Amino acid sequence: MLKYQQIANQIEQFIEENQLQQGEKLPILENLMNQYNASKSTIVKALDLLEKKGIIFQVRGSGTFVRRKDRKGYISLLSNQGFKKDLDQFEITTKVMDLQVVKPTKEVAENLNILSDQDVYHVKRIRYIHGQTLCVEESYYNKEIVTYLNKEIVTESIFHYIQEGLGLKVGFSDMYMQMGKLNDEEARLLGLIAGEPKMSAETIFFLSSGKPFDFSKITYNYQQAQFFIQGTNM
Amino acid sequence: MLKYQQIANQIEQFIEENQLQQGEKLPILENLMNQYNASKSTIVKALDLLEKKGIIFQVRGSGTFVRRKDRKGYISLLSNQGFKKDLDQFEITTKVMDLQVVKPTKEVAENLNILSDQDVYHVKRIRYIHGQTLCVEESYYNKEIVTYLNKEIVTESIFHYIQEGLGLKVGFSDMYMQMGKLNDEEARLLGLIAGEPKMSAETIFFLSSGKPFDFSKITYNYQQAQFFIQGTNM
Repeated sequence: MLKYQQIANQIEQFIEENQLQQGEKLPILENLMNQYNASKSTIVKALDLLEKKGIIFQVRGSGTFVRRKDRKGYISLLSNQGFKKDLDQFEITTKVMDLQVVKPTKEVAENLNILSDQDVYHVKRIRYIHGQTLCVEESYYNKEIVTYLNKEIVTESIFHYIQEGLGLKVGFSDMYMQMGKLNDEEARLLGLIAGEPKMSAETIFFLSSGKPFDFSKITYNYQQAQFFIQGTNM
Repeated sequence: MLKYQQIANQIEQFIEENQLQQGEKLPILENLMNQYNASKSTIVKALDLLEKKGIIFQVRGSGTFVRRKDRKGYISLLSNQGFKKDLDQFEITTKVMDLQVVKPTKEVAENLNILSDQDVYHVKRIRYIHGQTLCVEESYYNKEIVTYLNKEIVTESIFHYIQEGLGLKVGFSDMYMQMGKLNDEEARLLGLIAGEPKMSAETIFFLSSGKPFDFSKITYNYQQAQFFIQGTNM
């Protein structure tokens, strides 16, 4: 982790520990430089990162202010970190339904930008929140990039493993959401009734090099899943 | 519009006109500087803006690449520009159900961070896409900031008017999405059946100064609305 990222984490922690509210002003640049013993450009980079993450906002000529407005229990759709981080306050558990190496369907190959004879890991999981179904998740990983998975890994956070274990740098993601009605299979897995509301999302995750490595389809339990989306300044 | 914003628009247009695909490389910095007759720092700012908007991604030591991955007909949830821009390819029409100055409810006052005796504009609209209902939108504007609205304005793009007409600078937004089932009133307005899937969103829009000016509640027609969410590099 680079110095500006460390400082960004420290500032975020400072905001949390002191329970700073929306609109509260952070110390001026010079004070932050002293406090964190860092150059101006490092502090500027740390603040830019925090702004990107929606933690603060900067007003030219006026200063830096706290933005945080999380409502508890909402899944943030801008973070690429998976659920674990957002739902820290909850007990999330996972049941692995399937884990195997397969050849991709045409749809999977297209979204991962690979050939149909390359290998992918297929992982199907049900996630629970406080014992209630949260979602059914079906993921395909390009095995050339995500070279190894086992049951223990996919029971925990795959993203944590990809970053810490494999040392890969996750870049960005494209997510497509749709609504509809649950079919029999989806309803059975979620413990709901066919025809009830369904929210499904397809997400492609890219390494910071721009290579797609994960294509996931998630079907959410409409009674449990709620989302928080921060739009940033353009 | 500042120079780097103009250049960002030109580069975006260049990508569109030449139908550059995901992963295609843009010219190197020096060439862009020549092409747009701009300094290095201006080009860097233009590229950063385009990265923020999800149009490109930058790989250190390797270059700048096209990111665009829009699927036609999806509403982008990261842009703060309202529907008009995303759904350009469609015919969007609006029916105004209500437009009046009222006192805020407790919920509205809290979200707009105003007192209960201050005035707000209440605007209720149904939006149609190709003649089908897309959503019912109920918005509350702090009248101290959005000082004037009339039927013509709210039939068109309120955001365009706020930015161009009132000269306000829109900053960021917080959106909270939930799923459920339509009640009788919602079903009637959307032309659906009570009990069918419902997706609703509450959004608070802030000026770049951090002041909330618009609190909106939208109920979407699950058959028409689909969303595109770009997650950016953290």
